[in-house]
Amino acid sequence: MDLHDLMRRLHVKNTSKLVLLVADGLGGLPLQAGGKTELETAHTPNLDALATGGVLGLSTPVLPGITPGSGPGHLGLFGYDPLQFQIGRGVLEALGIDFDLGSNDVAIRGNFCTLDAAGKISDRRAGRIASDIGTRLCGKLDQIKIPGVETFVRPVKEYRLVIVFRAVGLGGNVEDTDPQKTGVPPLDPVARDAASQKTAEIAKQFLKAAREVLKNDAPANFFTMRGIDKKPAIPTFEEIYGLRAGAIAVYPMYRGLARLVSMKVLDAGQTLDDQCSRLESAWNEFDFFFVHFKYTDSTGEDGNFAAKVEKIEQLDAAIPRITALGPDVLVVTGDHSTPSKLRSHSWHPVPVLLSADSCRTDACTSFGETQCLAGGLGQFQAKHLMSLAMAHAGRLEKFGA
Amino acid sequence: MDLHDLMRRLHVKNTSKLVLLVADGLGGLPLQAGGKTELETAHTPNLDALATGGVLGLSTPVLPGITPGSGPGHLGLFGYDPLQFQIGRGVLEALGIDFDLGSNDVAIRGNFCTLDAAGKISDRRAGRIASDIGTRLCGKLDQIKIPGVETFVRPVKEYRLVIVFRAVGLGGNVEDTDPQKTGVPPLDPVARDAASQKTAEIAKQFLKAAREVLKNDAPANFFTMRGIDKKPAIPTFEEIYGLRAGAIAVYPMYRGLARLVSMKVLDAGQTLDDQCSRLESAWNEFDFFFVHFKYTDSTGEDGNFAAKVEKIEQLDAAIPRITALGPDVLVVTGDHSTPSKLRSHSWHPVPVLLSADSCRTDACTSFGETQCLAGGLGQFQAKHLMSLAMAHAGRLEKFGA
Repeated sequence: MDLHDLMRRLHVKNTSKLVLLVADGLGGLPLQAGGKTELETAHTPNLDALATGGVLGLSTPVLPGITPGSGPGHLGLFGYDPLQFQIGRGVLEALGIDFDLGSNDVAIRGNFCTLDAAGKISDRRAGRIASDIGTRLCGKLDQIKIPGVETFVRPVKEYRLVIVFRAVGLGGNVEDTDPQKTGVPPLDPVARDAASQKTAEIAKQFLKAAREVLKNDAPANFFTMRGIDKKPAIPTFEEIYGLRAGAIAVYPMYRGLARLVSMKVLDAGQTLDDQCSRLESAWNEFDFFFVHFKYTDSTGEDGNFAAKVEKIEQLDAAIPRITALGPDVLVVTGDHSTPSKLRSHSWHPVPVLLSADSCRTDACTSFGETQCLAGGLGQFQAKHLMSLAMAHAGRLEKFGA
Repeated sequence: MDLHDLMRRLHVKNTSKLVLLVADGLGGLPLQAGGKTELETAHTPNLDALATGGVLGLSTPVLPGITPGSGPGHLGLFGYDPLQFQIGRGVLEALGIDFDLGSNDVAIRGNFCTLDAAGKISDRRAGRIASDIGTRLCGKLDQIKIPGVETFVRPVKEYRLVIVFRAVGLGGNVEDTDPQKTGVPPLDPVARDAASQKTAEIAKQFLKAAREVLKNDAPANFFTMRGIDKKPAIPTFEEIYGLRAGAIAVYPMYRGLARLVSMKVLDAGQTLDDQCSRLESAWNEFDFFFVHFKYTDSTGEDGNFAAKVEKIEQLDAAIPRITALGPDVLVVTGDHSTPSKLRSHSWHPVPVLLSADSCRTDACTSFGETQCLAGGLGQFQAKHLMSLAMAHAGRLEKFGA
């Protein structure tokens, strides 16, 4: 019996409210051995109070040593084994711009780029063109017609776009055309299996037409394709857990991830305060809320320790608005670590804080990696976090007599 | 290679003695954050001495967040993955009254109930009739004859009984007839698969006859059926571990669980002192003893923190009689947590104490949840406890050259 079948069988409904507050890339590293991490450096009186009355632990997003992307990181938090459910980046991007992706669709993440006179990439992000330019160019590309397939081109943000091919029988297993460096031409789309030959052929035709369409639009005179994939069959969050789930996320990808498991994506503004307001206004409509805070990750990726500390303090300041709502279970964690020392996602276990009346408190009195290591939840795979949250909310019946 | 195959391959025999002392529902919760659990509150000088010289840890009976019933809880302790070996309640009850359940038998747990004039259940436990009344009524029901099937009816205790249908080709997948509430009639038995259609039909006929037999026996004028199931194929404890195992348990279900894995069930009296005497008298006949103490669970389910503390102190007082026998490995643990705060089984990890000359001692000096969290065994799935006990008894060869 797999974890989802177990959840399907054991879950019950009650009036409890659960909040999963994800600070993207929350886990960190000290800059020097023996020093403090970003989370430990930050002044976080509200999180520390929750830690004192709650229980801490460390989660492993995928497996020890494995650094997750945002997709696997979030799927793990939602209780989906990231090794079992693998999601292409193109699919995430499409979901994140509210594109209604169907089962015959292949989704592709595009990056506008600059080609020099020799056809080699001189800028992989086309000088980071403004969003309105990207939008206009996507409008032109959306006019391209390829026989036997419907094509859609949509802007995401700045130099990023989504391309969708829709036809029966398209495989989603095609290599990226982005060579990941400049000074070389874009790659041709290459199918990795027979079922994706037709997709690769369509992509080739589409890229040929696009080159003509964009030829006078430097710096955005071409685009590369990445994360080509189809939407996988994935059971819904509500079917597994019996939870009506609302997602409050600013960035498209995280909305896309929530939509992938059929959470309801709620519109909110751009700030954490806006997100809290949306949480308040939606409180009675849902059982479970996924609230996503991006900036702990982006500051980590920038290698800016002090800025990440500041973002964690902003997160801490939002806690009283959340606890004022009286959630039965509040989980604060990350989808992975993004130590500013490494300027990237990492494999290090992720701090977890679970606050609920039914938790077995531990000796921890502040939220940080060192205390989490001594926390009562121990170290566990992220895919079990939802079971723990459900249990603490009284939403799981006992297993067996 | 699964865990059992590994044990089969690695186990060796020697003269060591192992004792698994299970305090049912041992794990608890503090009543207030920062307070002590039942186990931490109890004065347990003997257990603390064992903790000082031994090694502690926390076990997860099934998976994080999953609350086990007694069956899965004990199977885990015996080294059987509770998700792989699922046992119906009827099977447990039948095993617990020494019914010799065979492979053609479907076992059913019955509850005498009271039907009102309209045929609706007015009391799901028939006024908790005395055991002698239950026994007499079971004698009447045992006379019922259904063509093509042998039927057996046996009393368990008070309003509880066991019904067994014996015939070739009976499936065990039939819904409960207990509607779990009063004011409605009992449900009809409904097969969940084709192989169980015949079982459901027999159950219907049997219930029809039983209604006639019991019509003048109010308050016990009918009974409901629950936990309808067949005995699963389960490897024996001796075959896996090479241990001659004796079980000393007062309550039927725990004797049933021991018998399920083919332990020898030893008669003992009703008290822990009686159980210790039986342990002493059987010491030379077995390699492994499962000793079950029920009252830590029942006081927890009553929500009686002080009474659970007292029962733990009773358990502690029995330790010297056990250690006087000189077991090579003594494990003290629970099958799950039953915090009196929650008045029910729970998912919280279970304290484990392992005492053996070969253990790597940790810094723990008393037996309690907080110290267990820092214990040398860490947090582990209960199904690995038997491997640890076997290893500490010198009964496992090394794996690989």
